[in-house]
Amino acid sequence: MNSFGRIFRIHIFGESHGEKIGVSIDGCPAGIPLQAGDFEKDLARRRSGAKGTTARKEADLPMLISGVYKGYTSGSPIVVLFDNADVRSSDYSVFNEIPRPGHADFTATKKWKGFNDLRGSGHLSGRITLGMVAAGVLAKKITAPVEIQANILSVGGTTDWDAELEKVIAEGDSLGAIVECRARHIPAGLGEPFFDSLESLISHLIFAVPAVKAIEFGAGFEAARMKGSQHNDVYIPADAGFSDEQGKTATNHAGGINGGISNGNELVFRIAVKPTSSIGMPQKTMNMKTGTMTELHIAGRHDACIALRMPVIAEAATAIVLADLLLLHKAMSL
Amino acid sequence: MNSFGRIFRIHIFGESHGEKIGVSIDGCPAGIPLQAGDFEKDLARRRSGAKGTTARKEADLPMLISGVYKGYTSGSPIVVLFDNADVRSSDYSVFNEIPRPGHADFTATKKWKGFNDLRGSGHLSGRITLGMVAAGVLAKKITAPVEIQANILSVGGTTDWDAELEKVIAEGDSLGAIVECRARHIPAGLGEPFFDSLESLISHLIFAVPAVKAIEFGAGFEAARMKGSQHNDVYIPADAGFSDEQGKTATNHAGGINGGISNGNELVFRIAVKPTSSIGMPQKTMNMKTGTMTELHIAGRHDACIALRMPVIAEAATAIVLADLLLLHKAMSL
Amino acid sequence: MNSFGRIFRIHIFGESHGEKIGVSIDGCPAGIPLQAGDFEKDLARRRSGAKGTTARKEADLPMLISGVYKGYTSGSPIVVLFDNADVRSSDYSVFNEIPRPGHADFTATKKWKGFNDLRGSGHLSGRITLGMVAAGVLAKKITAPVEIQANILSVGGTTDWDAELEKVIAEGDSLGAIVECRARHIPAGLGEPFFDSLESLISHLIFAVPAVKAIEFGAGFEAARMKGSQHNDVYIPADAGFSDEQGKTATNHAGGINGGISNGNELVFRIAVKPTSSIGMPQKTMNMKTGTMTELHIAGRHDACIALRMPVIAEAATAIVLADLLLLHKAMSL
Amino acid sequence: MNSFGRIFRIHIFGESHGEKIGVSIDGCPAGIPLQAGDFEKDLARRRSGAKGTTARKEADLPMLISGVYKGYTSGSPIVVLFDNADVRSSDYSVFNEIPRPGHADFTATKKWKGFNDLRGSGHLSGRITLGMVAAGVLAKKITAPVEIQANILSVGGTTDWDAELEKVIAEGDSLGAIVECRARHIPAGLGEPFFDSLESLISHLIFAVPAVKAIEFGAGFEAARMKGSQHNDVYIPADAGFSDEQGKTATNHAGGINGGISNGNELVFRIAVKPTSSIGMPQKTMNMKTGTMTELHIAGRHDACIALRMPVIAEAATAIVLADLLLLHKAMSL
Repeated sequence: MNSFGRIFRIHIFGESHGEKIGVSIDGCPAGIPLQAGDFEKDLARRRSGAKGTTARKEADLPMLISGVYKGYTSGSPIVVLFDNADVRSSDYSVFNEIPRPGHADFTATKKWKGFNDLRGSGHLSGRITLGMVAAGVLAKKITAPVEIQANILSVGGTTDWDAELEKVIAEGDSLGAIVECRARHIPAGLGEPFFDSLESLISHLIFAVPAVKAIEFGAGFEAARMKGSQHNDVYIPADAGFSDEQGKTATNHAGGINGGISNGNELVFRIAVKPTSSIGMPQKTMNMKTGTMTELHIAGRHDACIALRMPVIAEAATAIVLADLLLLHKAMSL
Repeated sequence: MNSFGRIFRIHIFGESHGEKIGVSIDGCPAGIPLQAGDFEKDLARRRSGAKGTTARKEADLPMLISGVYKGYTSGSPIVVLFDNADVRSSDYSVFNEIPRPGHADFTATKKWKGFNDLRGSGHLSGRITLGMVAAGVLAKKITAPVEIQANILSVGGTTDWDAELEKVIAEGDSLGAIVECRARHIPAGLGEPFFDSLESLISHLIFAVPAVKAIEFGAGFEAARMKGSQHNDVYIPADAGFSDEQGKTATNHAGGINGGISNGNELVFRIAVKPTSSIGMPQKTMNMKTGTMTELHIAGRHDACIALRMPVIAEAATAIVLADLLLLHKAMSL
Repeated sequence: MNSFGRIFRIHIFGESHGEKIGVSIDGCPAGIPLQAGDFEKDLARRRSGAKGTTARKEADLPMLISGVYKGYTSGSPIVVLFDNADVRSSDYSVFNEIPRPGHADFTATKKWKGFNDLRGSGHLSGRITLGMVAAGVLAKKITAPVEIQANILSVGGTTDWDAELEKVIAEGDSLGAIVECRARHIPAGLGEPFFDSLESLISHLIFAVPAVKAIEFGAGFEAARMKGSQHNDVYIPADAGFSDEQGKTATNHAGGINGGISNGNELVFRIAVKPTSSIGMPQKTMNMKTGTMTELHIAGRHDACIALRMPVIAEAATAIVLADLLLLHKAMSL
Repeated sequence: MNSFGRIFRIHIFGESHGEKIGVSIDGCPAGIPLQAGDFEKDLARRRSGAKGTTARKEADLPMLISGVYKGYTSGSPIVVLFDNADVRSSDYSVFNEIPRPGHADFTATKKWKGFNDLRGSGHLSGRITLGMVAAGVLAKKITAPVEIQANILSVGGTTDWDAELEKVIAEGDSLGAIVECRARHIPAGLGEPFFDSLESLISHLIFAVPAVKAIEFGAGFEAARMKGSQHNDVYIPADAGFSDEQGKTATNHAGGINGGISNGNELVFRIAVKPTSSIGMPQKTMNMKTGTMTELHIAGRHDACIALRMPVIAEAATAIVLADLLLLHKAMSL
């Protein structure tokens, strides 16, 4: 399914080498100022260009074809389109038969019986996250004054990774990484257990991002090694009554969430991004038609560390979830 | 939201100390044999009784009040109810003002403005997973011959944990743990990217289970330390054509999923379960009305290691997701 | 699908002769006073007993098993159960082979391959509307001060129909009827075009009620005979600014809806209810196994005019739709 | 909400005078042949040009920007865009303050607080149905061999209406009409009671079409005047077993639907289309800012009888509903 959200609801479409990709954002309140220029800052953070990112160059100019009128959201679906301009599709035709290891060539061919567009990974490409980032820009406006900030924590297992990255690029190999996302000023009370816990919704959207293989909130996997007397966060005394400060804790092992509901502390989660499966080194793979093994050389352009472009996508995912929950929160207040 | 699924769709309800809890399962094909006795094996695995689990004793007898006729699913919603019998609600009234650290008392009070049922954690209780296990029993029938098996990998950071558990019980403390779930014989092609990747759906449902704080698929967080040349799983040669064996890999760093779609290898994921927040030791907490700190002694019954009862819940979550995706897979085949 | 609604969301279950039927209501704000006694007035209006209604007698005592705590909605799903007590199931076994004309026996058997519960029409019975009426009671509380009132306009084509009804009962035949529903004090602005126009949502829910075959809003079919200069409702002058009186019109051909959105005038719609298909007279039908025609005598109890019990159901449907839209309206206000 | 459908799911967007309008179609099986030329026949039937339709001329060239690869649906969302070319927006600015009688100017202004795009009725325009017709083209392929055919039954209350139409055009007035839609070769068993009866789904989508104010299935409102012994359709004897001919009836008062499920007979429904609210004659209306009455002359181009362009839209709505139900039917077959 290519939709996500209950009130603030995004619909994504497009393929990596198709004519256009984009997103339709439904359920956005009318009257929010929005113009094409608002997208540039976040789009630029997602764009390639830095060391370790693909040589594909896309201007990513947002076309706002509906849902915005005289500089404000109008209440109808907001559609943002982007052109796919720097496309070299000749590289991909062979992967129908000879799937790239670690890639979705095999699973997509099985799923869509060979009718899928494999060029640049088609609809399964990381390029499709462009629409998520665009939706995130609008979601950030809705969730203000929430502040969301994601960063690279480590690459290839090290926090000082510049030299390692250069070495791996030279080898034609790739590297995994860990991205951490933090969000402050989230009001207590967001999250819709039983099934739509705050962790459930964020993880749902985060695992839609290609290459993510793990997520942990707060202490995360470390919590499995702890005792309750260690893990339980102790409240800091606050003024009586329901002030915004109430509920703050001295530690934050819960990552800002208890019982699937935000507790007013900082939301913290970390995600593991696997190394890009497209690598320049020769690899062994199978030929699906003949059943024999063969050697594969991937010639296309690719990111040596796709995680480098992912912080802004993690922020967008977080903002999209929070925007939806905030609107629902308003609906539920008597 | 208390619903999950697109075709095979479950709706959960109830509170820990309410009269009854249960689940309504919609979108189940007619003609599947089902009777009350079918539930016992999985319900028993979830039940307390073993060392480290709560002293609350519930018979958990399933009442099949609709959707089953003459021993077969009839095509209408299948509702399974359970009584809450062994209830001691006097323990809980104080937590409206004095929230238990690490618990959802504070967030639930904020969210529902004090109207929520705090007894035994109300709707946020682990007891609500009983309906998930019941739905899982039916989902396992739909997904046959898929085999799903979950186990405890470690408790409190150790794989040999019997002595540690006894010590912690004696101290009135609690322990976290890691649960691993594996599923075999899943056909390649399940998962609905962009937003409903197989990881997205499983994590969504897994994070609905109280106390889960992290999930990883395949190599998971370890993937962030790896190079692509290490992480990419190499295909094992198979007969030409689309045999079921095609797509099998020598390693399984992907955990059975590429591009959000099952690849026919074993599905593997691990979850981190935090230590139960209810502990018998005295804890400092705040009084929400006075703003002052106070000491709290929790007298109720609780699990020292809630993870011990979680393998069958993880299996149910997996089966529910796979059942829904298998039905969708059938819909999409020309 | 047995769910309806986006925020205020109902899930219905049960069969006419099963053990219990009921409804789960999700997405209801916490803090609304609710107790079992609140349901009686509307349940009584739906109950049989009057001339022309079935001899089946059900007490319809609502069991509130979850979602209500200390007399208020608690924020978790509200489940209302009802027993099926006065059940005579021996009457129905034959209809698997010899479908009753005008009934769902044939279509249900085709759809669910014979696994469906045909007793009392099973899940397709008008009895299942009991859960809608229960949900309507809560929806009416949410939509206050909206006033909804439905009435029988005509039976068998006549507005003075008492004698006609007696005659038809004596013949063992049945009668169709028209029910009109009106709702006042709906704020302008409810309805979610493009697809969720106010007419779309109301008609969706109304056509779920067994035996409804037509609906019209405002002038309805008469509008097809009119000119725009006749049909356009003329505004009545009101104070400047956005008072509640603004938008009132001298006529109400639109039935209170323009462009799929409420305009603040009275909501008016009429529905056609077909004559009950179960009649006491002998009828010709086919034997599905032999392919031959046979004569059928239906012995069970049935309503001679099912429409007589339908006004309160139409009100419930209206209230449920409006409750959902009002919550969404709140979510969307900046 | 701008989405409709459960498996075959359409998302619509755009405004009448915006840059582009379109539709995204999710949940379509891969491998269905589709190219731009396939749309022309149905788009031409919706286009203006005939007597009684607007002078606005649009080429309506479909741009297939995603979801189709090498002439076949690829499994990812299919997006069809159309340019709005023949736009004269100066005509509309005044309606923010002086709403057109019978139009959505008032309700849209109330709903979206004046931020909505009123040009050409913005998102509430009949032009938005273009995306529905495009989706209908694909839905018709999925539902083959179902044959769907809609026609104008009467205009302004008469079946011979050419002269009446000319007269009304000359007066600057408009006319309502009745459209009938029939569909053959629908298999028995489609429809998802309780809430998603076949009537519920069709009426939901039909009432999304601007200007529709009533719908009836089979005998419809006439059923309210009938006795059960008249209304019950008598089965025609057919060969034993489940042949496609089984279930055929001598009459079709049910319109092809029993219990919300298709019965294999012809699906028949009629809709009432109100006269276009935009008329050339002077009309009295209010000024929302001053509260005084004023005279309004609508200068823009409009259809004297919008119903004339509606048959193909009714067909599309029917096909979209049936496509979704057929896919679900496949999912549910064991």
